[in-house]
Amino acid sequence: MSYRAQVEDIRFIFNNIAPVEQLSATERFAEVSDDLSDAVLEGMGKLTEEVVYPTLRNGDLQGAFLENGVVRTSPGFKEAFEAISEGGWVAVSGAQDHGGMGLPIAYTTAFNEMMASSNMALGLCPLLTQGQIEALEHHGSEELKNLYLDKLISGEWTGTMNLTEPGAGSDVGALKSKAEPLDDGTYAVTGQKIFITWGDHDFGGNVCHLVLARLPGGASGTKGISLFMVPKYLPDADGNPGVANDLKVVSLEHKLGIHGSPTAVMQFDGAKGWLVGEEHKGMAAMFTMMNNARLGVGAQGVGVAEGAYQKALDYAKEREQFGPIVNHADVRRMLVGMKADTFAARSVVMSCAVAIDMATATGAAEWKARAALLTPIAKSFATEVGIDVAEQGVQIHGGMGFIEETGAAQYSRDVRITAIYEGTNGIQAMDLVGRKMMDGGEAANVLLDEIEADVEAARAAMPELAEPVWQATETLRETVEWLVSQTDMNTRFAGSVPFLMAFGRVLGGYYHLKAALAEGGEGPRSKLARFYIRRLLPQHASYLEHARAGADDLYAFTLEDLEA
Amino acid sequence: MSYRAQVEDIRFIFNNIAPVEQLSATERFAEVSDDLSDAVLEGMGKLTEEVVYPTLRNGDLQGAFLENGVVRTSPGFKEAFEAISEGGWVAVSGAQDHGGMGLPIAYTTAFNEMMASSNMALGLCPLLTQGQIEALEHHGSEELKNLYLDKLISGEWTGTMNLTEPGAGSDVGALKSKAEPLDDGTYAVTGQKIFITWGDHDFGGNVCHLVLARLPGGASGTKGISLFMVPKYLPDADGNPGVANDLKVVSLEHKLGIHGSPTAVMQFDGAKGWLVGEEHKGMAAMFTMMNNARLGVGAQGVGVAEGAYQKALDYAKEREQFGPIVNHADVRRMLVGMKADTFAARSVVMSCAVAIDMATATGAAEWKARAALLTPIAKSFATEVGIDVAEQGVQIHGGMGFIEETGAAQYSRDVRITAIYEGTNGIQAMDLVGRKMMDGGEAANVLLDEIEADVEAARAAMPELAEPVWQATETLRETVEWLVSQTDMNTRFAGSVPFLMAFGRVLGGYYHLKAALAEGGEGPRSKLARFYIRRLLPQHASYLEHARAGADDLYAFTLEDLEA
Repeated sequence: MSYRAQVEDIRFIFNNIAPVEQLSATERFAEVSDDLSDAVLEGMGKLTEEVVYPTLRNGDLQGAFLENGVVRTSPGFKEAFEAISEGGWVAVSGAQDHGGMGLPIAYTTAFNEMMASSNMALGLCPLLTQGQIEALEHHGSEELKNLYLDKLISGEWTGTMNLTEPGAGSDVGALKSKAEPLDDGTYAVTGQKIFITWGDHDFGGNVCHLVLARLPGGASGTKGISLFMVPKYLPDADGNPGVANDLKVVSLEHKLGIHGSPTAVMQFDGAKGWLVGEEHKGMAAMFTMMNNARLGVGAQGVGVAEGAYQKALDYAKEREQFGPIVNHADVRRMLVGMKADTFAARSVVMSCAVAIDMATATGAAEWKARAALLTPIAKSFATEVGIDVAEQGVQIHGGMGFIEETGAAQYSRDVRITAIYEGTNGIQAMDLVGRKMMDGGEAANVLLDEIEADVEAARAAMPELAEPVWQATETLRETVEWLVSQTDMNTRFAGSVPFLMAFGRVLGGYYHLKAALAEGGEGPRSKLARFYIRRLLPQHASYLEHARAGADDLYAFTLEDLEA
Repeated sequence: MSYRAQVEDIRFIFNNIAPVEQLSATERFAEVSDDLSDAVLEGMGKLTEEVVYPTLRNGDLQGAFLENGVVRTSPGFKEAFEAISEGGWVAVSGAQDHGGMGLPIAYTTAFNEMMASSNMALGLCPLLTQGQIEALEHHGSEELKNLYLDKLISGEWTGTMNLTEPGAGSDVGALKSKAEPLDDGTYAVTGQKIFITWGDHDFGGNVCHLVLARLPGGASGTKGISLFMVPKYLPDADGNPGVANDLKVVSLEHKLGIHGSPTAVMQFDGAKGWLVGEEHKGMAAMFTMMNNARLGVGAQGVGVAEGAYQKALDYAKEREQFGPIVNHADVRRMLVGMKADTFAARSVVMSCAVAIDMATATGAAEWKARAALLTPIAKSFATEVGIDVAEQGVQIHGGMGFIEETGAAQYSRDVRITAIYEGTNGIQAMDLVGRKMMDGGEAANVLLDEIEADVEAARAAMPELAEPVWQATETLRETVEWLVSQTDMNTRFAGSVPFLMAFGRVLGGYYHLKAALAEGGEGPRSKLARFYIRRLLPQHASYLEHARAGADDLYAFTLEDLEA
């Protein structure tokens, strides 16, 4: 069994679903072309197939561990990360004047997806570093940019995000970490942070922590939080790692999956930090990181789905029970469903990535709104697909799927975190029906108009596919109208996850229809579209019934009722 | 956090959903009464809460391991199993003339459910032993019964099922194990068996293996297979464990979950065995075990769902993020959904158990058909609920859910196997649309008639609940009609899993409606019924669309299409 990078499918999506040619029409991304896409995707594909994928099982079986205060990473991870760095893949979208490729987020997303297919635990190291690069590019002082960006972009140093504390998870504003101004313009940062992904490692270089903490006089809640760069080693006069900062890894978590990714409890004891952005504006700076990290997590969902699908298909071709099991109807149902959902999720994620790039390149409010609307859907729908596809991958393996040596269960365990971190899928759904509908549903309706126009145009060629997609889009639109008319937010929140899932299902139907159209109605993509629209798209209806059920019946339950 | 046995809910179901009073009207189960139910359920509840549940985490963290050929079990398991044995709980339904309680399978099912809530890995030991007892009661010679039944029923000895081989999983008929007749009327059994649950342990006594193997001249496929009792130690003249038989544990599997349950690769090297039942009729004898084991696995799904729900609820009450998270709409949606689905699954499983008991007590063909129809649904629907509820339990814990110390992930890992063993859920679904519809859908239609009659009677009291259940039942009936008219089995199989899930969903709606009626339309059960019927029942429609989609679109895919 080996991994085959999903170069062709991404290329197809770049051409037909989330067209990157829109990008090449902008000044910012004028260099984008088919040839560039080929070169970049093939480069990433080769690296992830040949160098990264061979480390996948090691990361699970010999996870990161703490030895005398030093984090030891899984066998082969250091060398694989070096190869990633040498290829320049850490910061595909990093600023060119600091050594980055300056390419669209769409390419970075392809990289993140392939990393997740080949080794999600390792892929988190560049993913977090990408976020830090972006935060510094937007909010860092020139001094900080000059000190850090080149080394982060080259992969010499890596980056982390330090938000969560034991009492402050989804409620970031409850954090207790403090920062005290020092005479030299820096700050002494003190506090404990948990769930710090790649909080330390033995790759060498420096580990750069972006830490949320409250300055003296900072308001309570999220408005009084500031962001600080707190490196493991203080850069010396030449910008090289110097003396150790006052911070340490207290412990690593024992997790369900991504064993190869060291998840640290970090202790900062008056560690020296530099302010990033303005005082008390740390959340805004952090959101820059988080939004793109959300897209990156969506890409992880797609990537793991792809890896799990390939593994299950390989097994189904080889395993004989009354003939190869790939020929059994129920196994086919699962395999085709996995493939159809993976394509739908990949299309949603890539459409979101291109929207972000168009927003960056044009500054247009419409593209910003599109990107903002699609981000929570891309994160949650794609990670739910990742979890579901990995589960079906286990099921196709039968009893062998439950045996860890097989490796099928690893995909399922690894991908499970994607529904939780970077804001749980519940938080994403609240964002979708709350903040993202504060425009009265305009961004959603613009997208639905676009879909319906395309679907109308497709009716003549493939009426049997266009009609159900059109109907589903209408039902979704009615629910959007209902949602924005609800002023009680709990009424929206009570069905927000099913609403988000329905949105993803409908988008998936639309993208499958586009794929079938692009293929001319005959061929594997058209077969896949028929399967999806006939068998999976109908789920939107029950999701939307759930979405419109309101909150009263939920709050009718007393605690005693729930305990009974 | 502690576990509270689900005594009250089971009592409610015994009174209102799957009435055990039907049983007390039969000669076989005349002793069944409310008082007996109370005594039995409270006894099981006390044992599982106080003795079994405290061993749950040990089973995960310190799983069974092999040491110099001897299986070592998790700390506390031996003592807990002794307490189970002393209470007489191993064989609640075991024959009274061999020391069993002789009670209905419904009570055994309650025990299996509580065991799964409190320690599913340990619960497998009595579950497998129950199956062996039943197989011996039906198919064993008097000599075998006298030698084995007392000790199995008392828990002094334990039992296993040896079916699977590396090349023979779902296709049991492909097995290669052989049995050679010996001069003394016994047989020499040779072969390797895999996935042998509780294949060995250090509880003392004897481990009794029921092994499928082929006699010389046995036809190929399932028709030439015979069943043998192959004990770890050969009973001496007094029936006590004597010299070791020629069998051994080759290795234990490293599994995703149920680490406390030793899953063995067994090697039989001319081990002495005794024929159980007739030559070449081993599959029939094994099916006796497997059918009730399927119900038992369904009960495991329910039990783990209950455990995961209780843990998530306890966490949601305590965890504060913008106030206790139990007050957040999305967390409520999950909790209420978990509770509603657990009740639905429990009701399906208990209805199946009572049908089996009625079939045993009356011998009536109608009850046999009902039991046969419900068994695959109880197994698959309840285990899918178990998996889904445990997943949602992880999600409610947020980041802590991904940390193994929390214990939420254990439910999710443990319950995953229930969709695979005792016939995968795909195999169950094929059984439902194949063998169980060979009556032209009669058994299904009798059940649907019964449901519709009850629902009609409920219309006056609660029209808003009765109408959707009636409509869903009609849609299900139409699909049954469509299914039985399909002569190409792949056409049925292609949608068999969604069909089974729809059947479960509709039964759940019916049972929730009955619960609301029994409560008079006001109270927690009626709230739960409203939630289920409004939010979860609608899923039946998309399942049934999927079920009727046929197989052509699946077989339209070439292997190259799937690989693309």
